[in-house]
Amino acid sequence: MAGNTFGQIFRLTSFGESHGQAIGGVIDGCIPGFRLDIEAIQRQLQRRKPGQSALSTPRKEEDSLEWLSGIFEGFTLGSPIAFLIRNKDARSSDYDSLKDVFRPSHADYSYVARYGLRDYRGGGRASARETIARVVAGSIAEQILSTLGIRIVAWVSQIGPVVMPENEKLWLRDEVDQSIVRCPDLMISPVMEDYLRQLLDEGDTTGGIISCAIVGVPAGWGEPVFDKLHADLGKAMLSINAVKGFSIGSGFASVSMKGSQHNDAFESIEGRTSTITNHSGGIQGGISNGEHIRFDVAFKPVASIKKTQSTIDESGNSREISIQGRHDPCVVPRAVPIVEAMAAMVLLDHALRTQTLKLNS
Amino acid sequence: MAGNTFGQIFRLTSFGESHGQAIGGVIDGCIPGFRLDIEAIQRQLQRRKPGQSALSTPRKEEDSLEWLSGIFEGFTLGSPIAFLIRNKDARSSDYDSLKDVFRPSHADYSYVARYGLRDYRGGGRASARETIARVVAGSIAEQILSTLGIRIVAWVSQIGPVVMPENEKLWLRDEVDQSIVRCPDLMISPVMEDYLRQLLDEGDTTGGIISCAIVGVPAGWGEPVFDKLHADLGKAMLSINAVKGFSIGSGFASVSMKGSQHNDAFESIEGRTSTITNHSGGIQGGISNGEHIRFDVAFKPVASIKKTQSTIDESGNSREISIQGRHDPCVVPRAVPIVEAMAAMVLLDHALRTQTLKLNS
Amino acid sequence: MAGNTFGQIFRLTSFGESHGQAIGGVIDGCIPGFRLDIEAIQRQLQRRKPGQSALSTPRKEEDSLEWLSGIFEGFTLGSPIAFLIRNKDARSSDYDSLKDVFRPSHADYSYVARYGLRDYRGGGRASARETIARVVAGSIAEQILSTLGIRIVAWVSQIGPVVMPENEKLWLRDEVDQSIVRCPDLMISPVMEDYLRQLLDEGDTTGGIISCAIVGVPAGWGEPVFDKLHADLGKAMLSINAVKGFSIGSGFASVSMKGSQHNDAFESIEGRTSTITNHSGGIQGGISNGEHIRFDVAFKPVASIKKTQSTIDESGNSREISIQGRHDPCVVPRAVPIVEAMAAMVLLDHALRTQTLKLNS
Amino acid sequence: MAGNTFGQIFRLTSFGESHGQAIGGVIDGCIPGFRLDIEAIQRQLQRRKPGQSALSTPRKEEDSLEWLSGIFEGFTLGSPIAFLIRNKDARSSDYDSLKDVFRPSHADYSYVARYGLRDYRGGGRASARETIARVVAGSIAEQILSTLGIRIVAWVSQIGPVVMPENEKLWLRDEVDQSIVRCPDLMISPVMEDYLRQLLDEGDTTGGIISCAIVGVPAGWGEPVFDKLHADLGKAMLSINAVKGFSIGSGFASVSMKGSQHNDAFESIEGRTSTITNHSGGIQGGISNGEHIRFDVAFKPVASIKKTQSTIDESGNSREISIQGRHDPCVVPRAVPIVEAMAAMVLLDHALRTQTLKLNS
Repeated sequence: MAGNTFGQIFRLTSFGESHGQAIGGVIDGCIPGFRLDIEAIQRQLQRRKPGQSALSTPRKEEDSLEWLSGIFEGFTLGSPIAFLIRNKDARSSDYDSLKDVFRPSHADYSYVARYGLRDYRGGGRASARETIARVVAGSIAEQILSTLGIRIVAWVSQIGPVVMPENEKLWLRDEVDQSIVRCPDLMISPVMEDYLRQLLDEGDTTGGIISCAIVGVPAGWGEPVFDKLHADLGKAMLSINAVKGFSIGSGFASVSMKGSQHNDAFESIEGRTSTITNHSGGIQGGISNGEHIRFDVAFKPVASIKKTQSTIDESGNSREISIQGRHDPCVVPRAVPIVEAMAAMVLLDHALRTQTLKLNS
Repeated sequence: MAGNTFGQIFRLTSFGESHGQAIGGVIDGCIPGFRLDIEAIQRQLQRRKPGQSALSTPRKEEDSLEWLSGIFEGFTLGSPIAFLIRNKDARSSDYDSLKDVFRPSHADYSYVARYGLRDYRGGGRASARETIARVVAGSIAEQILSTLGIRIVAWVSQIGPVVMPENEKLWLRDEVDQSIVRCPDLMISPVMEDYLRQLLDEGDTTGGIISCAIVGVPAGWGEPVFDKLHADLGKAMLSINAVKGFSIGSGFASVSMKGSQHNDAFESIEGRTSTITNHSGGIQGGISNGEHIRFDVAFKPVASIKKTQSTIDESGNSREISIQGRHDPCVVPRAVPIVEAMAAMVLLDHALRTQTLKLNS
Repeated sequence: MAGNTFGQIFRLTSFGESHGQAIGGVIDGCIPGFRLDIEAIQRQLQRRKPGQSALSTPRKEEDSLEWLSGIFEGFTLGSPIAFLIRNKDARSSDYDSLKDVFRPSHADYSYVARYGLRDYRGGGRASARETIARVVAGSIAEQILSTLGIRIVAWVSQIGPVVMPENEKLWLRDEVDQSIVRCPDLMISPVMEDYLRQLLDEGDTTGGIISCAIVGVPAGWGEPVFDKLHADLGKAMLSINAVKGFSIGSGFASVSMKGSQHNDAFESIEGRTSTITNHSGGIQGGISNGEHIRFDVAFKPVASIKKTQSTIDESGNSREISIQGRHDPCVVPRAVPIVEAMAAMVLLDHALRTQTLKLNS
Repeated sequence: MAGNTFGQIFRLTSFGESHGQAIGGVIDGCIPGFRLDIEAIQRQLQRRKPGQSALSTPRKEEDSLEWLSGIFEGFTLGSPIAFLIRNKDARSSDYDSLKDVFRPSHADYSYVARYGLRDYRGGGRASARETIARVVAGSIAEQILSTLGIRIVAWVSQIGPVVMPENEKLWLRDEVDQSIVRCPDLMISPVMEDYLRQLLDEGDTTGGIISCAIVGVPAGWGEPVFDKLHADLGKAMLSINAVKGFSIGSGFASVSMKGSQHNDAFESIEGRTSTITNHSGGIQGGISNGEHIRFDVAFKPVASIKKTQSTIDESGNSREISIQGRHDPCVVPRAVPIVEAMAAMVLLDHALRTQTLKLNS
């Protein structure tokens, strides 16, 4: 109800403030007897971590996971999997001067409006550091899905005004990681990097788009009315910090198309039903149709900028601020594994929901 | 779990197939002692109804509501409010020829993949006729919200390639309803109408965008992590038939902006905290900030077209079809009250969730 | 949240006031492609119906079901199954004199305290007539469970002070129905009947115990911590009108036993693990162990009595009342199918939850 | 869904195996701005702790809480409150010999049947050590409820065959704690103690009853249909390890009473509606009526006994076992704070649900 739990069957409850004792989560509803690849989880965390390159915040977090429960001799028990990461390098004093100031386009004011108080250090619960829990749970979900041959890859397709041309290729994570901005188009990624360096110099920031493709999802996953598969994917993505938009398949571009152009004609290839085009993005009527699932996520510019800004404090007095903390010029390169994680959780959850359509003894 | 219930506290469970006995719903969690305006509900249903104009399907449904429970002497009892609308004019025979065919970009194939069977008449549960239940529940939610001074208005801002220019005006529903396409810009609406007439002649269809503004929401509504207010709005909109995209505030346009342009500076006006710009769309960190909530919803072209299409049947045989049923060239004019309804349900649900932050005796 | 929905996967949402338009329900999460036996549902409704014998209220309700959705050509679609029963013989005028009186041990006062208003006619939502929805949903659940060889039988084991001796026999419903009090011990049932006739003459009522056995449940159903199988059964039973107690297996009698007497020793018979005794009632650690599930449910005396009682009205004035409506001297004979229905819903729900422990493609 | 979360609004998710890294929990939905009394929480944990007296297991656990999130400068933030207790004195080697044995009336077999594997050390997740998380969350709930003047006290009213006579007195916790068996009747408690000492000598165990009274609950809390207040209390209690029965108010004794005896007549005292008797146990139609809430919980004998028992191992071979671990002869003295905790969680949850009946700005 207070919204810190995600999923219906495979459920993550996340906890922790940015500069509190720890960030962590509890996963309930994981299938039992599954051998976890702890390394793979840590790898996804590395991709999310600050300080990966000159273009991300230098905050040094070990981000080393401590596992508290639910795993026995390397296998999941079917009981809750609890984990945490200590907050070690939290430089809370950075935030003392911001204690009673409402930073523009941050959650400071809305938190106070809601709760009457807030942990002002590092944004508290509103910090993107909360997404650590998501990456851990998503990485577990992904491992389970991979046993069915499902593969999820996200990449950066736009940063600020720099747009990667459309490309039907299914990227590998290694290809995505070839550039520090996680755009697999090696003609474009250097331009993005240049643009970010320039913004760093200006003390400014920008937004971006992450695209995601999921292959191997069988036809028949998703609920047809309120919990449509793409509605749940949309909610998952919109719940990530700084996301302002979501589109599936042809998305906003579909608006100006005609039905006769947009409709995905069915064909039968060696007995397998498929569609010739994929404007639907792999989902029809809220249910997967066996084609690639394909969606885009729009992130706004990072709100923490060094440039001086006008704002007010809790008493309504005008204040000038310049945010000195450790912040990225653009969030999308580090958000790639978060998008993958949320997608994995949604898909596994729907996969497990699909199990309840049959009753086997 | 099977996804036919929407909301956490104010909950709608919807039921019914397009050509079955009835479409209806049960609302649980409505506040007691509220005098319902049944006329206002019927008015919103009228706006959703087929056959409103030459540009919508001529299917004649009385769409007259039957109330089954939860209301006593005009007041809500706090018990479940059940209602239904009989399916009277269901011309199921129209669908006999489509019985075993997968219509392109419909849910026919994915339903069979999921359930192993389907009610092929009129799309069954996948029909947009299901949204009647949403409009009823949303209209009740809206009435309750209006006691707090909250007002929700949606309008058509694009049809096919015809775009209404940006305008900060807060429209009234009467202004929206001045044109049959529900675009309040009277320079643009005739162009949209012309475009739709042309599509009707061609036997083709197109998509559109519905924009929505909500005024009067106090700061402090919404949950900060997974159930962010805009994430729930996004899911609500993406659960509407034919929706392919959702954006809040600056949306996809934010991507190419800089932080210094995009940030909404706070100011204090007569003791009230507000922002000078509203790129955030009224929500920061998932919680309302007291500004207008503003979002856009993208609808794809209607999939049912008269033009001949290639597809396959359940046995994988190629088939040519031309869909003769009664369908709109564009769904957005009739979807305006659906968008308003879903928005109202999300907001009321979060308003009620907000009540649980305090414990009064 | 408002508590009119039962179950996690197989979910019943019930609606309707006793003297309103209709009583009904919506079942979401039913497996698709299941051929329903409508007759069998009607049979269970008959066993719940008033007016079955001289010992139950003569209110004549056809209790004939109207199916609104979710069924196509006799098979479940996997979509919500909505149904209703009209309230035809509601003699609301019987209740006019009780309009502003708080009947002792009824919910009149607590409803007003909660909601500020109530539908006073026939108890409104607090009427046991609401259990019609439960019997319908439970009967469907039972049909599905029976495909796994699971059988649920409840019987009356006590009425007032008349106790049926312990008996390990697994009764058939036909044996239970041999007597109008639904006690299968034909030595005891006439004594119970005599006792009830005597109470009818006195204008008084009494309580009773319903016992229930479930055979064929495989080992491994149930959740180990909060949603223990017997905790969910207990909640299900305690949610039935007039229930004051629930016990599983040895129940309250276990309290004075020693561990060495009470423990159920395991043995292996032809490779099947079983226990020699069954004090556990078929559930250990919240999870079924493959033995018969066995529990008891205690019902208090019916609160509606003809005898004159003292009470107060809504203004706090003293009043003398004698309740003239149509009421049973004891509720348990008609509650037998309700106990069976709730048990079936709990079991099917847990059976479906168990499906989510594996991920099959 | 996997049943490790309790509550609808005030929600506890519990995690941890008995001999794993830690036991803990996450509380979501706690009201913000509440000053926690950490000492009071620790006090309730002390009452649950092993090793309190010669009559409880000597396992020495510090049971010192580590708080991870959700609290800032002593106040709740409204965000998830995570906490843990390390498992320090876990003598897992005690369990090596039991690794592949199904202990009678334990969850060993049913866990394997459900999950295919188990953490055999100390019962893993089935250990009553899990209830630490409940006591922590319940103690917080109790503190919040106490601001409304609500007081919850449980006591031991029976151990084995030794029964405390009925007594209408509202006990204080100090009175309950005067004896190590937590029976406040000082004539009876020494008899209970003697009985337990005798069982310790025999290597045997027994059961008991815990009674609970809650005073100060206003009329109007609870949901009328499936989530009746006493149904939720019943489920809460039945979810505690070793509980076999629950009764509210007159409970099983009501069965043989007549309606005219059992009905609780209303009276008005200085404008306050109350009942002369309280057979209803403070709840009518599932909703509190302002009287004391009063219920009983039956616990079976502890299953771990030193006496030699016959059983089988995972391969079906017969085995003789004598359980040497550290176990209590009777669980009820230490279960008193657990009953109080579960009651507090249920009540606070319903108190918060009651908040949603009104919409305030």
